[in-house]
Amino acid sequence: MKQQETNPLSIPLTTHHQASPRTKSSSKTMGKAYGFDKWLVIRLLQMGGNPPICIVLWDGQEVFNTSEKPSKRIFLRDRGALYKLITNPDLQFGDLYSAGRLEVEGDLAELTEIIQRTIPDYGQRSLWTRLLARLYLIKRNTLSRAKDNIYHHYDIGNDFYKLWLDEQMVYTCAYFPAAAMSLEEAQLAKLEHVCRKLRLQPDETVVEAGCGWGALALHMAKHYGVQVKAYNISREQIAYARERARRENLQDRVQFIEGDYRQISGDFDAFVSVGMLEHVGLRHYQELGGVIERCLKPTGRGLIHFIGRNRPAPMNAWIEKRIFPGAYPPSLGEMARLFEPWRFSILDVENLRLHYTKTLQHWLARFETVAEQVTAMFDPAFVRAWRFYLAGSIATFAVGELQLFQVVFTRFDNNDIPWSRTFLYQDR
Amino acid sequence: MKQQETNPLSIPLTTHHQASPRTKSSSKTMGKAYGFDKWLVIRLLQMGGNPPICIVLWDGQEVFNTSEKPSKRIFLRDRGALYKLITNPDLQFGDLYSAGRLEVEGDLAELTEIIQRTIPDYGQRSLWTRLLARLYLIKRNTLSRAKDNIYHHYDIGNDFYKLWLDEQMVYTCAYFPAAAMSLEEAQLAKLEHVCRKLRLQPDETVVEAGCGWGALALHMAKHYGVQVKAYNISREQIAYARERARRENLQDRVQFIEGDYRQISGDFDAFVSVGMLEHVGLRHYQELGGVIERCLKPTGRGLIHFIGRNRPAPMNAWIEKRIFPGAYPPSLGEMARLFEPWRFSILDVENLRLHYTKTLQHWLARFETVAEQVTAMFDPAFVRAWRFYLAGSIATFAVGELQLFQVVFTRFDNNDIPWSRTFLYQDR
Repeated sequence: MKQQETNPLSIPLTTHHQASPRTKSSSKTMGKAYGFDKWLVIRLLQMGGNPPICIVLWDGQEVFNTSEKPSKRIFLRDRGALYKLITNPDLQFGDLYSAGRLEVEGDLAELTEIIQRTIPDYGQRSLWTRLLARLYLIKRNTLSRAKDNIYHHYDIGNDFYKLWLDEQMVYTCAYFPAAAMSLEEAQLAKLEHVCRKLRLQPDETVVEAGCGWGALALHMAKHYGVQVKAYNISREQIAYARERARRENLQDRVQFIEGDYRQISGDFDAFVSVGMLEHVGLRHYQELGGVIERCLKPTGRGLIHFIGRNRPAPMNAWIEKRIFPGAYPPSLGEMARLFEPWRFSILDVENLRLHYTKTLQHWLARFETVAEQVTAMFDPAFVRAWRFYLAGSIATFAVGELQLFQVVFTRFDNNDIPWSRTFLYQDR
Repeated sequence: MKQQETNPLSIPLTTHHQASPRTKSSSKTMGKAYGFDKWLVIRLLQMGGNPPICIVLWDGQEVFNTSEKPSKRIFLRDRGALYKLITNPDLQFGDLYSAGRLEVEGDLAELTEIIQRTIPDYGQRSLWTRLLARLYLIKRNTLSRAKDNIYHHYDIGNDFYKLWLDEQMVYTCAYFPAAAMSLEEAQLAKLEHVCRKLRLQPDETVVEAGCGWGALALHMAKHYGVQVKAYNISREQIAYARERARRENLQDRVQFIEGDYRQISGDFDAFVSVGMLEHVGLRHYQELGGVIERCLKPTGRGLIHFIGRNRPAPMNAWIEKRIFPGAYPPSLGEMARLFEPWRFSILDVENLRLHYTKTLQHWLARFETVAEQVTAMFDPAFVRAWRFYLAGSIATFAVGELQLFQVVFTRFDNNDIPWSRTFLYQDR
């Protein structure tokens, strides 16, 4: 399976016969590029806001639309790749990259960032492009659909995530109050930051909606002495979390439940959800708010940590199709649908956008060190797809297209609230 | 003008002939209360969610709708007052109180809080009540209307506000990180908190929209070495601020401009607005956003401090009519209209709701000590109206009906943002 041949690219090359089976071989479309092909490339660059990128066609011809020849190059390996790309660039860029039919010279995150900086903002794109993108938003996250969507990503296998996540298996944005922190330290700092914001007291009860592999639930129980009920619809993650609870002798303080947020029952001092809201879908915010309304005690606190936006826009088509089906990062204005019907009061919002860039940089670096093992587990296209997802996400947060919000809230009539946020920043 | 006669109420009594000239004398409607009058009072109490309040009618009869006789009492001095109250309680309570035709035993803020806790939430009221309330929202804050509205409140006279505001004349929510702070200390702490959130550096340029009597603008120039352009449409306030700048020899660093936010021009490192957004009106948020878009440098920061809500609702009718014409406190979701069209990125939101309760308590206590002087300046009805406004506002923030938000934002692509908020809480 090894393929690190002598090639000028810093990423592994996938030749066409090695691409994933679903990708049709397109060697028959090879040959010299015509004037029409070059015209299409210019059109493509224009659609992307004329990024300083040089496109190298399958016959070695270089096409660019800037006054000087750009140093960054993208290789299109066949004519079919160009045709696919022009019909739906958002979706096809990732697919063609995964299949090895589109390749990138140098740092992938850097190149994606260059493109994202010039690409027209969603609202300014053509109606056709916007309609295409909108199509992906029609799916509803019903209970069964939600399960399918979550299995798609989170049930790929614990062994896969173990290879490159931190030792506690936290698959959400870390918190780097000091830039030199390791990923392990920053994930721990995030867990602490969340617990402090929730003002947890010993023997309080906490419900966690979407608990991943259980790191936060176990941290809260171990370091804050609370009782936790943690919900997750990913079977693999719940199994792992339960095993860890037993190993750490916390099974009496943390209950891991294979279930959706809609199945939450009980009465809690705190509600917490880290990285779940993106998977809930706008239509279900009021429902989620109703769950919190039902389960939060009068002086209860809530924290929702999620990937958001500065303004509504559809999810990137490729990410939505290949990586996170049904996902949608809301703007803070859209998130109001969760709070307003129930009169929850927002106490604190913190935007940790650049912390996600840094987290993803750590993940990608670790992922690269285990790329061979991942290839052996899956196939080269999978590795390339994941590399594209991680590098693209670095860029998306770096250019300010996505945000990471932590929102703290309580009931409107709860006056048991702190007079300042100083306590978040004092030694414990 | 003195009227502190021997009466059981802790507030000064206004007898009918002393009420403001606009109030019709209604002594002809006096006499024994009928069964119909008592039925109306019960209906009124039901409309208010049956608060534990005893209503004492003009003939001394006590009416209440709870199983035990409540200790808190409201006195209705004539039949006309009852009739007015039942047609539009939100508006008439304040007017009747101001005219001395409705009186309250004991602490006014406490009583208002009791009523506010039982009164049905806006969305649950009858269509008629909601329509009445909506009528007040139709006015537009055009430039000339905005001026009228602001003159109404802020041009009452600097001498009036000097009597009971802090020595720096700050007429917005203070910040009490330590509960024992004086009003002076807490207003200073607020100015500091705002400056820190803006991360001001020496020689940077700042624009302030709605600068009051200039305290923040002068503080920024004096303690942070920045150049400030401060706008305000209140002539009296601008005159006072200019005089103070000369006195403190800051006229070269702070320019006070009699103008609306729509007239802002220049290029600034920071945009700040404290207590203005409430007067802007929803329809103009996008316009205000456009002003900021035009004047903020690429790495500029913005802070908007405003009275808000957990969810959209019309302004209280009396406050809107008598105190703040054209005012509207938005929800965070509504405030999105300011940011989303321009892709501003919200970095930080802090809710200081209970700080406003405390600020208002300080103001009301000071106001009571100068009530006689205010009576001499205006008339008893004015004093009673202002007492009702301040006490009612204490209650409104205490019960969680209004919020005080500080929102920090920047351009979507500005990566010069701090890694944590620790700097806000460290000694300078």
